[in-house]
Amino acid sequence: MIKFDRKYLKGYVEARDLENISGQVKNAHDALENKNGAGSEFTGWVDLPSRIEDKFLGELKKLGQKVRKNSDCIVSIGIGGSYLGIRATVEYLRDPKLLPIYYAGHNMSSDYFYDLFQKLKDKRVTVVVISKSGTTTEPALAFRIVKKFLLKKYSEKQLKDRIICVTDGKKGSLRQIADESGYQSFVIPDDIGGRFSVLTPVGLVPLALAGVDIKELVEGARQGQSEYSKADVFKNSSYQYAASRFLLYNKGKEIEVFASFYDNMYYVGEFWKQLYGESEGKDGKGIFPASVIFSTDLHSMGQWMQEGKRNVFETFVHIDQIKHSIVISKEKSDLDRFNFLAGKELDFINKQAYLATREAHYEGGVPNMSITICKSDLFHLGQLYYFYERAVAILGYLIGINPFNQPGVEAYKSKMFTLLGRK
Amino acid sequence: MIKFDRKYLKGYVEARDLENISGQVKNAHDALENKNGAGSEFTGWVDLPSRIEDKFLGELKKLGQKVRKNSDCIVSIGIGGSYLGIRATVEYLRDPKLLPIYYAGHNMSSDYFYDLFQKLKDKRVTVVVISKSGTTTEPALAFRIVKKFLLKKYSEKQLKDRIICVTDGKKGSLRQIADESGYQSFVIPDDIGGRFSVLTPVGLVPLALAGVDIKELVEGARQGQSEYSKADVFKNSSYQYAASRFLLYNKGKEIEVFASFYDNMYYVGEFWKQLYGESEGKDGKGIFPASVIFSTDLHSMGQWMQEGKRNVFETFVHIDQIKHSIVISKEKSDLDRFNFLAGKELDFINKQAYLATREAHYEGGVPNMSITICKSDLFHLGQLYYFYERAVAILGYLIGINPFNQPGVEAYKSKMFTLLGRK
Repeated sequence: MIKFDRKYLKGYVEARDLENISGQVKNAHDALENKNGAGSEFTGWVDLPSRIEDKFLGELKKLGQKVRKNSDCIVSIGIGGSYLGIRATVEYLRDPKLLPIYYAGHNMSSDYFYDLFQKLKDKRVTVVVISKSGTTTEPALAFRIVKKFLLKKYSEKQLKDRIICVTDGKKGSLRQIADESGYQSFVIPDDIGGRFSVLTPVGLVPLALAGVDIKELVEGARQGQSEYSKADVFKNSSYQYAASRFLLYNKGKEIEVFASFYDNMYYVGEFWKQLYGESEGKDGKGIFPASVIFSTDLHSMGQWMQEGKRNVFETFVHIDQIKHSIVISKEKSDLDRFNFLAGKELDFINKQAYLATREAHYEGGVPNMSITICKSDLFHLGQLYYFYERAVAILGYLIGINPFNQPGVEAYKSKMFTLLGRK
Repeated sequence: MIKFDRKYLKGYVEARDLENISGQVKNAHDALENKNGAGSEFTGWVDLPSRIEDKFLGELKKLGQKVRKNSDCIVSIGIGGSYLGIRATVEYLRDPKLLPIYYAGHNMSSDYFYDLFQKLKDKRVTVVVISKSGTTTEPALAFRIVKKFLLKKYSEKQLKDRIICVTDGKKGSLRQIADESGYQSFVIPDDIGGRFSVLTPVGLVPLALAGVDIKELVEGARQGQSEYSKADVFKNSSYQYAASRFLLYNKGKEIEVFASFYDNMYYVGEFWKQLYGESEGKDGKGIFPASVIFSTDLHSMGQWMQEGKRNVFETFVHIDQIKHSIVISKEKSDLDRFNFLAGKELDFINKQAYLATREAHYEGGVPNMSITICKSDLFHLGQLYYFYERAVAILGYLIGINPFNQPGVEAYKSKMFTLLGRK
């Protein structure tokens, strides 16, 4: 279960405010469901969880078992939506039993590649290349560089068993490369954009190779689809999150801070930043998405959150039940004066810090919400992904933009190609 | 050398604008130098680089040599300023020859500790505990937890050679613990706050233990002290950065994004966020500090930066000369159409992406500056730290706040102690 709490929106967003815009939310919902809103050609993610076939998940599971027999690690080549959902899922799990995934294609740092190859040199490697077109500069160059490295270890023939492509079904250079070289390949659907693609082969293939239980992740997203497809804002917490953000934005709250007291949520925050920043940030509009991990950042961004400019709101992502337990011990001499906590679970103290922070920031003028998942398992992550996707679509329609395109991403690329002398 | 470039502030901040506030800058400079501005009791960092004795650096170097003989890693316990400067320096260097540093005391996640102890169980460990008071909850509890773990490996007597404290010279519980237990200890000066303390024993001790050449770091800061102590805004790029930020803030640019195309700058960005967020975010004022690593985040926050709400400016931190070289190879069949880059250095392409992004974001309505360090060595990092410290002090005085306190950090703590039942 995912619990959504807007207690600390009091005075900023009340039930009557939600009531007032419930009609607008309903219109946004209808546009999304009936596929007649802006960007509707990219709304294949809406009913994706229920369309995924268990048979396909079973096939991926088998492929993963095969790969884990002949590989010590995966190299996952991709950027943006072909990187963040995979990494968010793996880092959230922090499971030592998974095959390690190394990432490439998300930057052009030579020093990064140098370090990567130091790590890979004595390892058996399987590579997944993820790119709809195959012509995005970073992953395309990374594929060239990684392949050259692999050819020192393996023959071209051996690479047929060690390179897997996730790309367009028919066109594009990576499709061509896969077909001509005889690499196994999977198809990225045409109606789902990168940042909504974690439950397509983009996310599912590398995750299955690493040994992640993708069925549980998909089951969670199915639960999300069923919970968050209700038109009524009072029965749909994803829509409540969207509507509350819309109302806060209209009141001059220009920055949203994703906050968690659990450091394994860091890359979920990065995933969220792409999903929200890229969906909303257009036409001179959009809430600026930022993220913090507490209590680390209470001693960094905490001062600003408590007393800085009041143009900000916060959304906590909380975990009820964690994996491991640590109990505070009693010291003979209580020099640090923390013996009053002896016998207490460290996580209990962490949770009091969370409650204290929500109240303190609210009193300091920062309205805040929280999303609590009862357990840090795959089911709840799948549900959370869907919760986020649904909410950003509704928010996009509420502020009047197309939440499914990303025209601004082209600007640096075309200038770069000019500088590089491409005709 | 550090180069500061404000080419893409054209139309937002011009030379005449800097001229207009040069008097204000001079006043701020005088208040800082004459120690009669707000918070002047915490300005010991101003002439710290020139006051550090080479003899002391030599002693730390020797201590490091001793520790590296009997330890496989360091555990550095601290939060905020007792964490970020250390980590920023180590991650920036990315030097496999250094003794690994693991961090604790910067969160209260039981799952984090579980993973940490898995990593430490077969290793010989030296611990550095860094806390001015010794009663900050996170590091104090971490010290209890880590010590309990160490007592499974070592006797109380052996721990005397494996625990080093960095704390107040006279008072506080960690001072008492160090003295009573016979741990080696170092003193945090009274006139330097946490976020300005990277060149005090707070940063120097753990860095020296890991094998970082702290002398080079200090030499760079000395260069910074000499360059950035000039009153004239046109002769002092640190002041130009401060004055430009002030002018942009007054024009409604409420968010500053720290951006780098070099992923080893990630924790320098985190260091900067604390230094700036905690110094400025008070009295309902302050620029919101955020950070991105490109090109990774061009496919995440890039859309927002290009076309989102125009309440943002950007400061690039660029590196001229990197460590390793990778050359793009020529492929027989040019399916991805990148053969036009064959023979080019990857870093050359990365630099064109940097130039393209600066221009594209400027044209999209995001004024931006850049700080370029010619080489990613310790000298330039030391200089950069001082550049940042000096600028935030001046900015604080320009916007009329005390840049050296952090009253808001107490708010969550007192509420947390109430929830935990402390009298």
